[in-house]
Amino acid sequence: MSMTEFPTAPDKTALERGEVLAPRFDANGLMAVVTTHAETGEVLMFAWMNAEALARTLELGEAVYFSRSRNEIWHKGATSGQIQKIVEMRIDCDQDCLWLKVLPQGDGGACHVGFRSCFYRVVEDGKLVERP
Amino acid sequence: MSMTEFPTAPDKTALERGEVLAPRFDANGLMAVVTTHAETGEVLMFAWMNAEALARTLELGEAVYFSRSRNEIWHKGATSGQIQKIVEMRIDCDQDCLWLKVLPQGDGGACHVGFRSCFYRVVEDGKLVERP
Repeated sequence: MSMTEFPTAPDKTALERGEVLAPRFDANGLMAVVTTHAETGEVLMFAWMNAEALARTLELGEAVYFSRSRNEIWHKGATSGQIQKIVEMRIDCDQDCLWLKVLPQGDGGACHVGFRSCFYRVVEDGKLVERP
Repeated sequence: MSMTEFPTAPDKTALERGEVLAPRFDANGLMAVVTTHAETGEVLMFAWMNAEALARTLELGEAVYFSRSRNEIWHKGATSGQIQKIVEMRIDCDQDCLWLKVLPQGDGGACHVGFRSCFYRVVEDGKLVERP
């Protein structure tokens, strides 16, 4: 599908300072995605997108990831109700990572374990402690 | 070095709810790291750690990454002065991603392009716009 094709930046300047979205997918065709809560700033989850997931995310205005475990496109919340409405999308300097600021719908959660955020444990003195 | 050895969680419950730090490194021996500013919540950068980088980060209380481009341990700020003092470290549900809340030292920046954060561009209507 043509919608899943993105250009490649011709040089470093275009990649880092250009206005053309030229995402760099890795050897597996994936790019990293950091998702934060648009209101609290909390990091909710970390996931991956392939070109199709990115194209669908841009089209929908909702987060669509690529599930590496299920090896398929994953419209977050399609079954759980935890749809992520995108408030802002940013990309990093070398265009291999996206930052989504979202408003989680449904019960407001993002993590399959049942927590609001996947990052519910703090590393303290080498141990993990669950903390909101 | 024994300091770079971490245990493997024996099962899903231990991985997701346990108090033992059992980081899951990928096929390249790396895990994803999201770094935010401890005071503003802004996502500053996205990077990687191998076991040695994680062990040194825990020991130092400062972010030590693994540079994939240089293929070496990278004590952030060692040359730039942009040392990242760790205020809190969190790990996600399946222990393959870390979230560091840091206080950037030196000029307060984190990005090699010169911006405070690597995410200095917003994706808007398919175009990239530089915005603080």
